[in-house]
Amino acid sequence: MNQPAKIKHALNTTREGDFAQWYQEVIAEAEMAEESGVRGCMVIKPWGYGIWERIQKLMDEQIKAAGVENCYFPLFIPLSYFAKEAEHVEGFAKEMAVVTHHRLIGDGKGGLVPDPEAKLEEPLIVRPTSETVIGAAMARWVQSWRDLPLLTNQWANVVRWEMRTRMFLRTSEFLWQEGHTAHADRDDAMEETLRALEMYRAFAEGPLAMPVVAGEKPENERFPGAVATYSIEAMMQDGKALQAGTSHYLGTGFAEAAGIQYQNKEGQQAHCHTTSWGVSTRMIGGVIMTHGDDDGLRVPPQIAPQQIVILPMLRDNDEDEALLAYCEDLRKALVKLSALGEPVRVLLDKRPGKATQKRWAWVKKGVPLILEIGGRDAAGGQVSVLRRDRLWREDAKPNFVGQAKDEFVAKAAAELEDIQTSLHAEATARRDAQIVRGIDSLEGLAKVYADDQKFPGWVELGWSRPTGAALEAVVTKLKALKLTIRNTPMDAAKPTGTCPFTGEPAVETIYVARAY
Amino acid sequence: MNQPAKIKHALNTTREGDFAQWYQEVIAEAEMAEESGVRGCMVIKPWGYGIWERIQKLMDEQIKAAGVENCYFPLFIPLSYFAKEAEHVEGFAKEMAVVTHHRLIGDGKGGLVPDPEAKLEEPLIVRPTSETVIGAAMARWVQSWRDLPLLTNQWANVVRWEMRTRMFLRTSEFLWQEGHTAHADRDDAMEETLRALEMYRAFAEGPLAMPVVAGEKPENERFPGAVATYSIEAMMQDGKALQAGTSHYLGTGFAEAAGIQYQNKEGQQAHCHTTSWGVSTRMIGGVIMTHGDDDGLRVPPQIAPQQIVILPMLRDNDEDEALLAYCEDLRKALVKLSALGEPVRVLLDKRPGKATQKRWAWVKKGVPLILEIGGRDAAGGQVSVLRRDRLWREDAKPNFVGQAKDEFVAKAAAELEDIQTSLHAEATARRDAQIVRGIDSLEGLAKVYADDQKFPGWVELGWSRPTGAALEAVVTKLKALKLTIRNTPMDAAKPTGTCPFTGEPAVETIYVARAY
Repeated sequence: MNQPAKIKHALNTTREGDFAQWYQEVIAEAEMAEESGVRGCMVIKPWGYGIWERIQKLMDEQIKAAGVENCYFPLFIPLSYFAKEAEHVEGFAKEMAVVTHHRLIGDGKGGLVPDPEAKLEEPLIVRPTSETVIGAAMARWVQSWRDLPLLTNQWANVVRWEMRTRMFLRTSEFLWQEGHTAHADRDDAMEETLRALEMYRAFAEGPLAMPVVAGEKPENERFPGAVATYSIEAMMQDGKALQAGTSHYLGTGFAEAAGIQYQNKEGQQAHCHTTSWGVSTRMIGGVIMTHGDDDGLRVPPQIAPQQIVILPMLRDNDEDEALLAYCEDLRKALVKLSALGEPVRVLLDKRPGKATQKRWAWVKKGVPLILEIGGRDAAGGQVSVLRRDRLWREDAKPNFVGQAKDEFVAKAAAELEDIQTSLHAEATARRDAQIVRGIDSLEGLAKVYADDQKFPGWVELGWSRPTGAALEAVVTKLKALKLTIRNTPMDAAKPTGTCPFTGEPAVETIYVARAY
Repeated sequence: MNQPAKIKHALNTTREGDFAQWYQEVIAEAEMAEESGVRGCMVIKPWGYGIWERIQKLMDEQIKAAGVENCYFPLFIPLSYFAKEAEHVEGFAKEMAVVTHHRLIGDGKGGLVPDPEAKLEEPLIVRPTSETVIGAAMARWVQSWRDLPLLTNQWANVVRWEMRTRMFLRTSEFLWQEGHTAHADRDDAMEETLRALEMYRAFAEGPLAMPVVAGEKPENERFPGAVATYSIEAMMQDGKALQAGTSHYLGTGFAEAAGIQYQNKEGQQAHCHTTSWGVSTRMIGGVIMTHGDDDGLRVPPQIAPQQIVILPMLRDNDEDEALLAYCEDLRKALVKLSALGEPVRVLLDKRPGKATQKRWAWVKKGVPLILEIGGRDAAGGQVSVLRRDRLWREDAKPNFVGQAKDEFVAKAAAELEDIQTSLHAEATARRDAQIVRGIDSLEGLAKVYADDQKFPGWVELGWSRPTGAALEAVVTKLKALKLTIRNTPMDAAKPTGTCPFTGEPAVETIYVARAY
């Protein structure tokens, strides 16, 4: 009897073997990011940053299309702004980078120290988020109902002093966009909150090919000071949930703290209703853990910095010139195409190095289509095509498909679109298969997450929406199982049955999961 | 005899009256930026940020086209990295924001203070520039000659603790791009240094319509540690110079400090030759002082967030609907056009408010073309067009030109291109008229900059290229006249005659000027 052929994967670690280690290996091998030598901060390398640029471009179009205007607010926020907020907001996070001096001076021993003469009168905080400083600006900008809604966004770096960091998922400094809007009334603000949520949902399911559940977070998971917090939650391949974007309805609390008032049509002063919403480089961590496989990353074509890489198999001989000319013709034909609403992005990789080494480097980076072109292909008008999402043949060899160049060009755009769709379908099927239903007791829940369960996924439960102490009791029980409530999906059918925690009739549905 | 009609300008301050005050007024009235309440930091508002987004987009295309890859490096740099540089580099700037704590704690009186328990072992510096941290990364990334050249860039915020700040020109925090490259030898590094310089020159003269002189800075104006520093210098309307971009050839000094080494083809270890180059939000200050007039900003079409604004003269009556439909048709026809290589950017401004108020708001913002459309225009298939660079008629009335809608649409792209060219030509003519030649003594130079000279411009001089103490003596004399050497233009003819400072034969040409 024949042994089934054994695939030799490009990574040393498999997802099944050690998911956390696999994640780090993908980031290193795909050359997405690396430790910077600065505590909790990463260097985002060209392939990782290129994905972020794609995310920025596509998201920014959505933000602008909604009439939101980009601004830029200061990196530093005076300490007193936070004192105001600390007073106002329970659960105020205090882990922040504090600037206390504005000059260095020699220490007399060849080193440098903060100059004691240059101590700031008031320390400055490196923004962890910009509610306070944007609130102060809004208080200046909003006078009358005519100024509303005021829709602003910024793309910026923010800093939160995280104790345990993990690249892309939780770093001391990260990149994000933060939308901040002010409205005349609750309905308008809530509409904006849900518009942003839906923008994020569609963005995750579209460009990121990452299925998500959009819904409201429970009261204990709200942004401090928010009246309602909504999130999109994605399931990673280890079954854990990743909160990949949030949108908050802040009521009038932040407007009261910042003095954002307007004169209404009746001539009276009223406080605005505000919202905020954001997504960050964390999304890239979600893309890795949604689409990566044991050969590295797979980037959905819509956010791939390069969608097609052409690898000429150069031999340092006379034939190279003709081969390169053939590849350049191919590149020119491909960049004329449009796929997923944009010109196709193609790289002809002429760098020195062995073609197979370069192939595996691109496989690990997850470029959607790799074309290897040898002298014989060039002579015969052929291309040899490797689809990253169909990498292996049954005989454990790379699944190169030879085809006529013109034929390939004619269907390249459709191929990219098919990869985008396939990645989404694959992730959705996996996610759906890992959602457990029909649990009606805490014991049943504990069994799902028993130690012998590898990647237990999410549990969908009926929920009686307890609040206050009753909710805290549930949260404590879940915490013992390392579980959290993710959210109440927007589109769930009204549940029947009882809430397994309270025994009361369920009024809504929740997802419970382990989470990043 | 008739009095010549007197124009009633949109601003309160004229350039002639008080240039510095005029500059602030343009920024405020064009709603580009404002003070943030955080020392030395500004809030960049949508119109100002929109211009920066245009600059970023166009410059980023150039950077990518040169094969440079974008990365992102940490905001914070450990103090020890600077200690290394302070040792290495004379003239090391020490005014920097220093992070010393990572947590806030209640002070027991309702306020917050840095938590003494959360003092960092090693202070972190908010990056004033990223040479050190990028150098450390390059030392990891470069191993062999095959890794060279290494071409990286980042778009980021940086902080320099400036004592006197002025919006866009000198702020504690500003936005910029910084290119950092490593090369095998001097020639390759110098080629990159000059490529970046030429990119900046062409960018200033092109999209910014801002004439500049590209050239080498004198030795005393070099970036600390650089072997050669090049700049582009623009003349503002008050005759002062603005350094609007720099490119540095750093030799092997930075590579030695950071340990950036490679194995050459002969198998030996060698230090890289590095470069760095950058432009910042300062460019926007240059655009204001190059193109602004007594009615506000004039934005060159290529960097205008909106190129054409359509203002329907709404009357809150039955005719508004037809008027809006007409304007919407016009907008749709215009956005199909392409001007200056991109789709035309058009805004139909339907916000409430009087049409004339809105008109002047857009005049002050400097949108290149304003279309005012009344009910009669709509009925007659007409548009009324105001070119921002030809704002006034001889009778001191706004220079609206009525024309058939289709006729306007047919030539709108050409009109925008003409505005771009006209602004450049106007600025170049003004600049050239303000360059003084034929000065052959310090006394002659002093006369040009005598107190009764309003906007004295630049002086072009023959230069014997003194160095060391001889150069310092010249710098001191110039300083007494508040003058600095700007640069030695790349394209200057070999001068004849003598250097007015040393009496020696001139070997090159320099520009001397007051500067921002």
